[in-house]
Amino acid sequence: MTIALMNGGAKRSCSREVSVYSPVQSSRLDYKPPMPSVLEGHFKVEHGSSTSAVGDAGAIAQLFPKLFGQPSVHIVPCAAAAFKEEVKLRIGVVLSGGQAPGGHNVIAGLFDYLQKHAPGSLLLGFRGGPAGIMRCKYVEITSEFLYPYRNQGGFDIICSGRDKIETPEQFKQAEDTAVKLDLDGIVVIGGDDSNTNACLLAEYFRARNLKTHVIGCPKTIDGDLKSKEVPISFGFDTACKIYAEMIGNIMVDARSTGKYYHFVRLMGRAASHITLECALQTHPNVALIGEEVSVKKQTLRQVTNSITDTICKRAENGQHYGVILIPEGLIDFIPEIQHLISELNEILASGTVDEEGHWRHKLSPQCHALFDSLPHSIQEELLLERDPHGNVQVAKIETEKMLISMVETELLRRKQEGSYTGNFKGQSHFLGYEGRCGLPTNFDSTYCYALGYAAGALLHAGQTGLIASVGNLSTSSKDWTVGGTALTSLMDVERRRGKNKPVIKKAMVELDGAPFKKFASVRDKWAVEDDYRSPGPIQFSGPTAEETNYTLKLELGVSC
Amino acid sequence: MTIALMNGGAKRSCSREVSVYSPVQSSRLDYKPPMPSVLEGHFKVEHGSSTSAVGDAGAIAQLFPKLFGQPSVHIVPCAAAAFKEEVKLRIGVVLSGGQAPGGHNVIAGLFDYLQKHAPGSLLLGFRGGPAGIMRCKYVEITSEFLYPYRNQGGFDIICSGRDKIETPEQFKQAEDTAVKLDLDGIVVIGGDDSNTNACLLAEYFRARNLKTHVIGCPKTIDGDLKSKEVPISFGFDTACKIYAEMIGNIMVDARSTGKYYHFVRLMGRAASHITLECALQTHPNVALIGEEVSVKKQTLRQVTNSITDTICKRAENGQHYGVILIPEGLIDFIPEIQHLISELNEILASGTVDEEGHWRHKLSPQCHALFDSLPHSIQEELLLERDPHGNVQVAKIETEKMLISMVETELLRRKQEGSYTGNFKGQSHFLGYEGRCGLPTNFDSTYCYALGYAAGALLHAGQTGLIASVGNLSTSSKDWTVGGTALTSLMDVERRRGKNKPVIKKAMVELDGAPFKKFASVRDKWAVEDDYRSPGPIQFSGPTAEETNYTLKLELGVSC
Repeated sequence: MTIALMNGGAKRSCSREVSVYSPVQSSRLDYKPPMPSVLEGHFKVEHGSSTSAVGDAGAIAQLFPKLFGQPSVHIVPCAAAAFKEEVKLRIGVVLSGGQAPGGHNVIAGLFDYLQKHAPGSLLLGFRGGPAGIMRCKYVEITSEFLYPYRNQGGFDIICSGRDKIETPEQFKQAEDTAVKLDLDGIVVIGGDDSNTNACLLAEYFRARNLKTHVIGCPKTIDGDLKSKEVPISFGFDTACKIYAEMIGNIMVDARSTGKYYHFVRLMGRAASHITLECALQTHPNVALIGEEVSVKKQTLRQVTNSITDTICKRAENGQHYGVILIPEGLIDFIPEIQHLISELNEILASGTVDEEGHWRHKLSPQCHALFDSLPHSIQEELLLERDPHGNVQVAKIETEKMLISMVETELLRRKQEGSYTGNFKGQSHFLGYEGRCGLPTNFDSTYCYALGYAAGALLHAGQTGLIASVGNLSTSSKDWTVGGTALTSLMDVERRRGKNKPVIKKAMVELDGAPFKKFASVRDKWAVEDDYRSPGPIQFSGPTAEETNYTLKLELGVSC
Repeated sequence: MTIALMNGGAKRSCSREVSVYSPVQSSRLDYKPPMPSVLEGHFKVEHGSSTSAVGDAGAIAQLFPKLFGQPSVHIVPCAAAAFKEEVKLRIGVVLSGGQAPGGHNVIAGLFDYLQKHAPGSLLLGFRGGPAGIMRCKYVEITSEFLYPYRNQGGFDIICSGRDKIETPEQFKQAEDTAVKLDLDGIVVIGGDDSNTNACLLAEYFRARNLKTHVIGCPKTIDGDLKSKEVPISFGFDTACKIYAEMIGNIMVDARSTGKYYHFVRLMGRAASHITLECALQTHPNVALIGEEVSVKKQTLRQVTNSITDTICKRAENGQHYGVILIPEGLIDFIPEIQHLISELNEILASGTVDEEGHWRHKLSPQCHALFDSLPHSIQEELLLERDPHGNVQVAKIETEKMLISMVETELLRRKQEGSYTGNFKGQSHFLGYEGRCGLPTNFDSTYCYALGYAAGALLHAGQTGLIASVGNLSTSSKDWTVGGTALTSLMDVERRRGKNKPVIKKAMVELDGAPFKKFASVRDKWAVEDDYRSPGPIQFSGPTAEETNYTLKLELGVSC
């Protein structure tokens, strides 16, 4: 069978020129991620016991009749090669969703696996995310093509996309591609949604008796795709370290200047892992954790007051500066704001908003009061920024500026009342895009390479519907365990538009988990004392290069 | 004479706790900056020929009757100790103006000089900038007190301030402090203004026959304090590398995502060195250099159109993403905006701005048209954000958002006209506080340590009115030259309120200088091709740790 080795695709996925690389980029090209010992010698796949699902096993069993219950697997050492090396595999790989440092190394690990254990195999990269599968847009990944991306940040080797394979027509398109390219497997590198999609694709291919298997890999800087067997999603380590570097610098500036409160909003919409990890790394005066705000059903006024209380306490000590961390998704966690936004969406859908403000009377009394209490600029953002469906774009609301403005108002009130005598100056920051495509840390480089290598081994062993899992991460990478976790075992069901939809539940910050408990035990001290910690820039060599993040260490029971 | 070894001061300058340091912070504590050979053995001060001034030597001679014309000096090796080691010096040191990475190392170099060459000397740090001199607020800098700050970012060891010693009363206060503390010398670590102030203080002390000498050190991340003998101000190297790390990451994200234009505003109000350096490090699609905008007398419309042209050209190539760098001071360089702001200031001073907008007719026709062409949010910022004098706060204008909005409008026009068919989404960033207090690079650590060491030697040798200068920076630090440049030789005169004021002229980006010429020779290529370069995080060890910045290398004639 002859196929074109490259087709379609935008200019943006043209290969990189190593000649323009910076010295640090170049120095990473030849970094060899250390490999878990189990992947060094001969190994085989060992099946565990059959699995169930996180929730509503009955519904998951119905949605995945072929795959439900299949065991997770471990890759274990054995005496001789267990997989046929003479088999030439034809594998596709796709990057799905937002960028995360390390994605290129998953592809490198997968490529190197095939080179070593199934020489002559073909690796095709689908361009621009799942749309590349549906439209059959791909490029052949060769040794030369891959080289400039080794240990480098970004997803630009084949680029990513946010499309999903959802409708019957789209599944058919994916099937057409798999058949046309004669694929033995597809590796889907993505977050919770993309891995759910990977599992649906695996089920669909199995049901259609296709030979194409599907393996997922856990990617997201947000850190909200994890389970017992998948201890961390890749990219979280690097992104948090980049944000923490900046926060640490801002802290030293705050203390040196002595007159600014820096409100730093951090990427991470659904869960507050990034904010929590950055707090553990830097020791801010305040860090808001969305999950806690939600559990305590805090109002915006309560959140504002708690920040203001800290500022007043510090002012009494002569400290008129500080650093406050805010998760991007904060307002999604505040019930009254959700309420306001849904009322606004209805009003905006039903008619125009008059300049005189009579429309405000259509709001319920609580929402009306809340809307009136918001800073003018935020009111405008709520009314003006709409998505294509006409809804308020919550992600565009500059929460850090909103809080600065509300704290300012509250401090003015306290000043008039005589309970605050300081001077407050807020500075706003948003850290997001800076962290998604940084050069991956040694941890992410190594972890991703192992994930990709594992994905290759799992496909070689004929597995499907698994997510590559690398564990025992509190030890040296030599001792890391490698396997594949049944994707159906991570699933629960959500009712959407009257239908059961399988979902991998997002892993939220657990208020009784070790990272939050650690934070909760020290935050009062951090509020008033200056315990600022400056992580500094990520180092790739020397004794500090191998540190992993606090969240992972604490979750694995490592004291730190 | 007995004096209290510490007095006054806010809580914010309490010493740091090394116990909370991150591994990278800790790893820097014991870094020993390599020393120029000339400072290792015995050395003496050698006088050059007498000096003049950059401009209006007559006026400078009148303003500095004691110091004008004094030679610059070189520190050169000699056979035996040239300075009396039995002399115990009493030295004060002050940090003045904005933070810059490396300030702590200037103090460390100064301290270590005194320990080694004038053991038993006393080093006092004035707290909170020049105000600390005037109010006699200081702390004794001991070995233990200093240790946690070695090779660390920030100015928090004694903090900084923006006060100036200006009035006769203030000079008297400084004199009182110098006499009370029996100071042999004061080291002023600061930018152009602070070094001008240092020279005035040196002149004043000399005129009053005080024994207190004054030596300056060149500090500013902005890079606009430099001359032939002072090739670079400290902090520029680190700050630019931190910004360039972030820009590089954003570029990889832009290329990976393929749908955003990132408009990055960079700190640096008076000159565009930071933007130029970051451009040389990262290869953006557009970088605006204020000095060029000014020389070409560009209007805001022309600036907008030039960005829009690039976006359209890229759209034709299927590239709907990019990165655009904007110096913080851009609008200070656009004559028509300066004109508008001065008209606004007058109108705002003379009365209220009516909501109906009748006040706009008080603007000249050009300014009226310009104001009307500005995005609504920027109009509001111009009218609402005022400084204590009621003037428009130019620094608060979010130029990056303004340009996004104006480019959007222009692209819409071109779309309607049919000359543009892409989709434009802008993302705004401001990088500033993140870079002022980062851990200093090896270059800044070493350069600052040498500056401080040199300042100690100059005071020991009885010098005053000099700025410590370390040169020959294109070679290994062993071969760096060390000396002191007559501050009066850097001066020019400005008329302010009918009076001659001495100033060290800010070093602007020279359009015929090597850095700009290099940029100008490649920017058209960068505009359309993706030559993105990602500098990555600053490394403190390994082969990439010793790279200096492009601006310095190019100015010194090193090809790169």
